Amino acid sequence: MADMTAVRIGQGFDAHRFAEQGTCKPLWLACLRWADDERRGVEGIDGDSDGDVASHAVVDAVLSACGMGDIGSMFGVGADSMGAGMHGDRMLQLVHDRVTSDGWHVVNVSVSIVGNAPRVGKRRQEACEAMTRALGAPVTITATTTDGMGFTGRGEGIAAIATALVSR
Amino acid sequence: MADMTAVRIGQGFDAHRFAEQGTCKPLWLACLRWADDERRGVEGIDGDSDGDVASHAVVDAVLSACGMGDIGSMFGVGADSMGAGMHGDRMLQLVHDRVTSDGWHVVNVSVSIVGNAPRVGKRRQEACEAMTRALGAPVTITATTTDGMGFTGRGEGIAAIATALVSR
Amino acid sequence: MADMTAVRIGQGFDAHRFAEQGTCKPLWLACLRWADDERRGVEGIDGDSDGDVASHAVVDAVLSACGMGDIGSMFGVGADSMGAGMHGDRMLQLVHDRVTSDGWHVVNVSVSIVGNAPRVGKRRQEACEAMTRALGAPVTITATTTDGMGFTGRGEGIAAIATALVSR
Repeated sequence: MADMTAVRIGQGFDAHRFAEQGTCKPLWLACLRWADDERRGVEGIDGDSDGDVASHAVVDAVLSACGMGDIGSMFGVGADSMGAGMHGDRMLQLVHDRVTSDGWHVVNVSVSIVGNAPRVGKRRQEACEAMTRALGAPVTITATTTDGMGFTGRGEGIAAIATALVSR
Repeated sequence: MADMTAVRIGQGFDAHRFAEQGTCKPLWLACLRWADDERRGVEGIDGDSDGDVASHAVVDAVLSACGMGDIGSMFGVGADSMGAGMHGDRMLQLVHDRVTSDGWHVVNVSVSIVGNAPRVGKRRQEACEAMTRALGAPVTITATTTDGMGFTGRGEGIAAIATALVSR
Repeated sequence: MADMTAVRIGQGFDAHRFAEQGTCKPLWLACLRWADDERRGVEGIDGDSDGDVASHAVVDAVLSACGMGDIGSMFGVGADSMGAGMHGDRMLQLVHDRVTSDGWHVVNVSVSIVGNAPRVGKRRQEACEAMTRALGAPVTITATTTDGMGFTGRGEGIAAIATALVSR
C-alpha cells in the first residue's frame, strides 16, 4: 500500500426474529420491502427498527472498520432510541455521512444473508443497488440457507454477516 | 493503494446437513474426501452438490468481492442445476476462470470451518493446498467446534464462513 | 497496492459454552474480566483456556491471514496444551510475536461478539484498548444478540466472528 493510505477492514453480524404469524408486519431486508408472495409465509421482523439484518450488519462492519463504534453506540438501543423505526437505507446514509465526515472512504462492503425467506436470489441485483445507493459505496450480497438447521433453518429468524473495506 | 488498483473484499457463508446414518455418502470438505476413520461417525452431506461447505463459502466470498453474484446465480440451485453433483474443486476452478476473465486477481481467501467432524486439524495443510490449487490463489483454513452448542454442536451439520480479497 | 507489499485477509470464528450455574468461574471476554453485576446471570466459560471467544477468533483471523495455521496448531488443544489456562491477552501477544517475526504487520482486526451477556457496549472502548494493547495493532469490537434465537439467544454460550488485515 502507498504510505499515505490507511486501509482498514471491518466485521459485522446481526440476527432478528420474525414476528408472530398474523401480526402483518411488513418485511424489510437489504433496503427493500418484500411482498407477501416473496416471503414464503414469514412475517416481518420483530424489533424497534425495521429489522433489516443486512443493513444492520453492514452498519456494524463499516463503523468497526473506521473505529467508530457500532450500531448500538451510533443509533442507540430500544424503543426510545434514535434508531427506533428507522429504515436500513436511512441508517446507511447516516453511516456514510458520519464516516465520510471523518475522512473515510468506503471501498466496498459484502454481506451474506442467511435464512429461509425471503428468497433473495430473485431480487439480488435490485437489493445490491438499493444498498449501494444508500451507502454511497458498492455493496454486494450473497444469500444461503442452513438446510433446515438452527434458528434460521427453523424459520425463526434471519441473520447476516458482513465485511467492509475502507480507506483514508 | 496505488491509484490504478481496485481492491475489493467479499464475505461468504454456507451450511449443510449430514445425511442420515446408513446412507453411506462420501464426505467431502475443503476439496478433500474424508475417510471413515476421520469422520467421527458422521455421514457425508445431503444435497445436490458434494456438500463441501468450505468450497461453497469460498465461492460466495470470491464472487461477492468481484461483484459477480453468488453460488446460486453461477451454478444454479437444485438437482437439475449446473452445480448438481459438482465437486468443490471444480467449482473453485470455474470461479477462478470466470473472475480472471473479468480481469480480477484473487489475492487470498480465508475460511473458518465450524463443526464437530471431520477433524480438520490433522489434514489442514493438505486441505489448504487442495483448495489453493483449485482456486489458483492462496486459501487458508481455520477450524473450530461450538462446544456442543447449536446445530453444528449437535452434529446435525457443518458450516463455513469465508472472506476474500481481490484486486483488479 | 504498491508492488512490494503483500496484503492478506483472514477470517476467524469461535464459540464457547458458559459453565453451569454455581461453578463461580470468572468470565473473561475481549481481554477483560467481567464483574458479577455485568454478567446478567451467566457464569464464566467452560474450557481449558479462559474461554475468551473474542480473543480466540482474533487469533484465528490473524494466523489465517498470515498463512500460519490456527489457534489449535499454535496453542494445542486440551487440558495439557500450551494454551490451557492461558488468557486471551497473552495469546494475542504471542500471536503478535510470531507473525511479526515472520515479517508480517497486522493492519487491523475487527471482531463481532454475539451473545446475551455480558453487555459489551458499556465497556466497548475499554475492551478495544485491551485487545489493541495485547495484539499491538488496532482491534475494534461490535456486539449484538440474536433476539433470543439459537444457542447464543438461549444463553448457552457466546460466539465471535473476526476478520483481520495484514501486510508484509
